[in-house]
Amino acid sequence: MATLKVPTQIPSAADDAEQLHKAFQGWGTNEALIISILAHRNASQRKLIREIYHETYGEDLLKALDKELSSDFERAVLLWTPTPAERDAYLANEATKRLTSSNWVLMEIACTRSSHDLFAAKQAYHVRYKKSLEEDVAYHMSGDYRKLLVPLVSVHRYEGEEINTTLAKSEAKILREKISDKEYSHEELIRILTTRSKAQLNATLNHYNNGYGNAINKDLKADPNDEFLKLLRAAIKCLTVPEKYFAKVLRLATNKLGTDEWALTRVVTTRAEVDMQRIKEEYQRRNSVTLEKAIASETSGDYEKMLLALIGHGDA
Amino acid sequence: MATLKVPTQIPSAADDAEQLHKAFQGWGTNEALIISILAHRNASQRKLIREIYHETYGEDLLKALDKELSSDFERAVLLWTPTPAERDAYLANEATKRLTSSNWVLMEIACTRSSHDLFAAKQAYHVRYKKSLEEDVAYHMSGDYRKLLVPLVSVHRYEGEEINTTLAKSEAKILREKISDKEYSHEELIRILTTRSKAQLNATLNHYNNGYGNAINKDLKADPNDEFLKLLRAAIKCLTVPEKYFAKVLRLATNKLGTDEWALTRVVTTRAEVDMQRIKEEYQRRNSVTLEKAIASETSGDYEKMLLALIGHGDA
Repeated sequence: MATLKVPTQIPSAADDAEQLHKAFQGWGTNEALIISILAHRNASQRKLIREIYHETYGEDLLKALDKELSSDFERAVLLWTPTPAERDAYLANEATKRLTSSNWVLMEIACTRSSHDLFAAKQAYHVRYKKSLEEDVAYHMSGDYRKLLVPLVSVHRYEGEEINTTLAKSEAKILREKISDKEYSHEELIRILTTRSKAQLNATLNHYNNGYGNAINKDLKADPNDEFLKLLRAAIKCLTVPEKYFAKVLRLATNKLGTDEWALTRVVTTRAEVDMQRIKEEYQRRNSVTLEKAIASETSGDYEKMLLALIGHGDA
Repeated sequence: MATLKVPTQIPSAADDAEQLHKAFQGWGTNEALIISILAHRNASQRKLIREIYHETYGEDLLKALDKELSSDFERAVLLWTPTPAERDAYLANEATKRLTSSNWVLMEIACTRSSHDLFAAKQAYHVRYKKSLEEDVAYHMSGDYRKLLVPLVSVHRYEGEEINTTLAKSEAKILREKISDKEYSHEELIRILTTRSKAQLNATLNHYNNGYGNAINKDLKADPNDEFLKLLRAAIKCLTVPEKYFAKVLRLATNKLGTDEWALTRVVTTRAEVDMQRIKEEYQRRNSVTLEKAIASETSGDYEKMLLALIGHGDA
């Protein structure tokens, strides 16, 4: 369930565009006005505002925002405003070019988006970067990471709920064998995780749990410091219980040792229109504090206001 | 260029559906009438006829055709009538279940269809088989074939004409190194062939040819009987000069040692609306006989008439 709050009656896209244009005029920028509009419009409404802004003022709204805003607030607004497909294409492209934690962002996009949304992101990637996401991932990655990530971003998973029980049992056995042999990047293990539907995979992992007495992610903790194993566990979490994965990313991003604004912004902007409500519940259950409180204590100013608006704090 | 001939003035889809229904009535089936309609309607026209036939007579047109027709003619009509996406989904599914030459059909579909058409086939596969093409290919294949075929059917290739020359040179070098080392299924070689756009791949193979004095497919003939190498050469042909690949399939399917009706029917039905004109020219150039003549001498009856109609023989 989304946390985005859109007023029941909203101004026309032309009015919104005009208000945004006004927010950029004169001395200083009216950040509050920007938040009051953009943080309370859904993807198709924002798309329309952006189109009309471009027609009316001859400039891409994102470019105007880029000039007017700065720092963490700027990044939050610039990530939030585009369509989910454009945003994912941007995040994925950024991930192929950075070294740190880039595997995680790619895995997260590949495993938590619906097949339809992942495909839309790949189409947006073609349009913007004049190449495919798959070729960039394959080119920039190597070794086990490439073996896992290329099929993860490539395969168009089936999304139906049908389950083949015989297959679930036989593939649970294959997973168990490979994990027992510590063959964590074995092609059969990769095949099962990257090609099966989420429903089928869930059935397989239930058989694994029932048949071998441990959840698969427990068995994948043999070496807690192995980075590839960490990514594998995260991928399984994203494919089966994404809200738990995101709650954990938010927990690590808002912990006492310093705030990870990039991760915080990424999760809030990508999930506000999808499942942020469940993520918030999971966050509170696990940390005994609301996400609102955590964000309020770790961030400030317009950035704080923007994030809180997106996670549904206050009125639309 | 397509060879399908559609009359400038065609009856309404309702009239076509009624005529087809009449062709199934009484003693015997009116095959000539079936050919005169179906072999002269494009994909969207056939789709409409099928929808109206179903509405009017409460039966899927394909089921009715299945009951009325037989043998090679039946297969030709049943392969031709559906949309290209449904047809490709069917052919690909059939390929994952058969052993003989199944790799070739999968490779052919993955490499000769546009990214858009391949994606449409994968969507049709979800709808019909309640699973993904990718999981079936990955499940049924193994070894080098899996390493090549899974990314071939998975990746959504970029289709623009932009070329990165530096990359073309460096990847030509990688290909040369792997081929020199006889590492034909090396992950870098597979990566380049399966993820790069056709335009980029073409530039890379031109650099290969210019830089190393041989076309890549000549260097891939080191062991002429190696089945994987044959498939690799065919994939490269499909990606760069599909009309030559199809002309050769047709040549082998119509040679003196016996006709391969399955291959003949597959190529004619899948290419009649795409590039059969170029394939015919290539066929004639290479065999000094027209494809019409070859088909007329190797086939007979309604099957012959159907194939000849699809490759543009006679009037619409």
